[in-house]
Amino acid sequence: MAETKVLRIGIVGFGTVGTGLAKILLEDARTIADRTGIRLELVRVADKDTTSPRKITLPEGLLTEELDRIINDDSIHVVAELVGGTTVAKEIHLRALRAGKHVVTANKALLAEHGRAIYAAAIEADKSIGFEASCCGGIPIVLALRTGLIANRIEGLYGILNGTCNYILSQMTQSGADFKSVLADAQAKGYAEADPTLDINGTDTAHKLAILGGIAFGGQIRMDDIYIEGIEHIDIEDIHNAREMGYVIKLLAIGEQAADGSVSLRVHPSLIHASTPLAAVSGPFNAVSVSGHSVGKTMYYGRGAGMMATASAVTADLIEIALGNSRRAFRTMPMVTGTGQALSIRKIHDIECRFYIRLMAKDEPGVVAKYGKILANHKISIRGAIQHEGRGPDNTVPVVITTHPTLEQNMFNALDELARLKVIGHRPVCIRIVDIPEDSE
Amino acid sequence: MAETKVLRIGIVGFGTVGTGLAKILLEDARTIADRTGIRLELVRVADKDTTSPRKITLPEGLLTEELDRIINDDSIHVVAELVGGTTVAKEIHLRALRAGKHVVTANKALLAEHGRAIYAAAIEADKSIGFEASCCGGIPIVLALRTGLIANRIEGLYGILNGTCNYILSQMTQSGADFKSVLADAQAKGYAEADPTLDINGTDTAHKLAILGGIAFGGQIRMDDIYIEGIEHIDIEDIHNAREMGYVIKLLAIGEQAADGSVSLRVHPSLIHASTPLAAVSGPFNAVSVSGHSVGKTMYYGRGAGMMATASAVTADLIEIALGNSRRAFRTMPMVTGTGQALSIRKIHDIECRFYIRLMAKDEPGVVAKYGKILANHKISIRGAIQHEGRGPDNTVPVVITTHPTLEQNMFNALDELARLKVIGHRPVCIRIVDIPEDSE
Repeated sequence: MAETKVLRIGIVGFGTVGTGLAKILLEDARTIADRTGIRLELVRVADKDTTSPRKITLPEGLLTEELDRIINDDSIHVVAELVGGTTVAKEIHLRALRAGKHVVTANKALLAEHGRAIYAAAIEADKSIGFEASCCGGIPIVLALRTGLIANRIEGLYGILNGTCNYILSQMTQSGADFKSVLADAQAKGYAEADPTLDINGTDTAHKLAILGGIAFGGQIRMDDIYIEGIEHIDIEDIHNAREMGYVIKLLAIGEQAADGSVSLRVHPSLIHASTPLAAVSGPFNAVSVSGHSVGKTMYYGRGAGMMATASAVTADLIEIALGNSRRAFRTMPMVTGTGQALSIRKIHDIECRFYIRLMAKDEPGVVAKYGKILANHKISIRGAIQHEGRGPDNTVPVVITTHPTLEQNMFNALDELARLKVIGHRPVCIRIVDIPEDSE
Repeated sequence: MAETKVLRIGIVGFGTVGTGLAKILLEDARTIADRTGIRLELVRVADKDTTSPRKITLPEGLLTEELDRIINDDSIHVVAELVGGTTVAKEIHLRALRAGKHVVTANKALLAEHGRAIYAAAIEADKSIGFEASCCGGIPIVLALRTGLIANRIEGLYGILNGTCNYILSQMTQSGADFKSVLADAQAKGYAEADPTLDINGTDTAHKLAILGGIAFGGQIRMDDIYIEGIEHIDIEDIHNAREMGYVIKLLAIGEQAADGSVSLRVHPSLIHASTPLAAVSGPFNAVSVSGHSVGKTMYYGRGAGMMATASAVTADLIEIALGNSRRAFRTMPMVTGTGQALSIRKIHDIECRFYIRLMAKDEPGVVAKYGKILANHKISIRGAIQHEGRGPDNTVPVVITTHPTLEQNMFNALDELARLKVIGHRPVCIRIVDIPEDSE
């Protein structure tokens, strides 16, 4: 065995992931050293709360409430920022970098919203930021995109990136219960936060897409480059209808690069065909399907969050930093350097998409002709339709339609017009259908 | 953008993968340089055959039949050995290393059978071998195991590693045709070689398991550490029976490390439950499910072979070499250095497994009691059974049994005894059932 190199680590934030990382550093350091020649040494853990019980007992003297005892300790090489949020965390990153330390983090919100400032500070300090843990927990997707698929022009990236949303949608599909009651159940079981807003409204998924898209397409992505829709309005009826037509509803992060180089980035509930591998990803799991011009379609699956899975990813980054590999990979990424051509972003209205529409129409002669005409006027071609016999309130019947690909803008206009139609009188439910490209044999 | 570093490459072997690599190096070098700061430069391609048409036209003067024009060219940093086989290829590796060049390769047979000598020569020369392309084509599985999951003690690795076998088994399952006719069809379509022996007898899968297992479990694996059984004897009847009982038959590579540290390595046809993600991997695709003690279960999926997918993996290795990342990662792997404790290998007879058995029994009173007694005597407990009404030749009926876990040795002995039983009179068909551990929530 070659000589062992020591990497000294300070953890800031002794919550779930901080606890998981401390556990690995205390329990597995020796095995890891045998395999890598790198000895990971936990020097200090800082948290405002030094008294609550955690799932691991730290050696005497390791836990402190003073951040400065990490920042000002010149023997510490790396700060693991596991605080979360975008205010204190940003300060920790900047201070750690200025103090000549690398940073590893699971903080997708911070990197998605303040990445430019943080990357610039890292380059300035000649240090790197390890952020494998920021996307998809333990799945090495940052590594796959940054290194494994580097020879590829990425054409499409389709991800289930938020475990809470996927758990809720999976439960609704399996149990037939509605959004509200499944959310309450998810909160009780720990799969959803007390305030789940950022998860269910798609923001967390978009944070991760900003990072993964930045690597995949080689540029800096701003949050307002991403169109975002959450799962709050998914009705159990649409899940049933989707299933009847051979689809499953998932909250997807989508990044696509067209042949002209323009990039589309969006997060929205999506009907995907039940035979697509992503359709089988259920519960709190994450998965990302990536298509490259050389490699074809690849897929990555695993636990997208959780104490040990996320800590596993943080540890991989620590090893890469100690080996000296992070610095080089980090400094050559256009997302980090901000050099190279800016990405040309294609806005949602200019995308072609298929749609699922559900409306309640009056049960009277001529109705089909009326909505059919509106769709036709907007160049929207119907691919499938279901109108079960039976009645809704006010002598209405539910009509479900799927369309051929059409411009988002056309659909937007058609929905406006349908809402004004007397025999409908409301804006129809509209969910996008995403046909994930197959890797043809 | 930082300064661009040039990596000069010589390709040896201008077959399928060599052509794919040349295509990437000629067509995508500029994009890759923009993203990585590394300029990949194809200097020379050597092959005995310099006249057959290929899918790419090389610039004048690049193609040569003289290997020495690569080995003796001091301006070339890396040799891409894409010849295959274990004789000439070995010589190429050793000569390239001695000449001070790194080597990248897709040659699983060579590394599985002569890895020790080659790794030692690389360490001696202070160069590295990049072998991402040797396993699962474009799927970055070597990278995931070596880097992404480095914090983990790998507990289990379950892979569909051979596209030919998976294509054949998938086709048998879908079409109901028998092994021979599906193989002929696969050969006609280019999914099977003219001589498919090493694919269908499991050797190719075992080569890959030797490499992936070596990384995952941190040690050098010899080919005779691996138990190997191929798919030549899979009967369409067993595929039907498996399906009726909720299973799919796949050729699996299995690596498991028990709590006592002992490692079991085996390649054999396996009944896996139809709901397992690996069961959905069909056609020529590959997938690997990896369970780590921290990360839980992760899975990697993609095209396991083919010109561009494999070339994509070779290119990723070239970038890693140019960035200087390969050298460090390579030299710290116990599989490469041969240091550290040797793996304790658990032989097949000592494994506990579930089994599927099919036998033809005489249709007469007392038969069930007879074979039931033999199984019981060997401590084999029946979990499920099917005996459809109907007749086989000589007044026999087919009986299908699945068992609870039992020692391989017990089953081996029971099969011997069943074969001697007058009412059976032949060694029953026996296929292992593999319960891939779920990542419980």
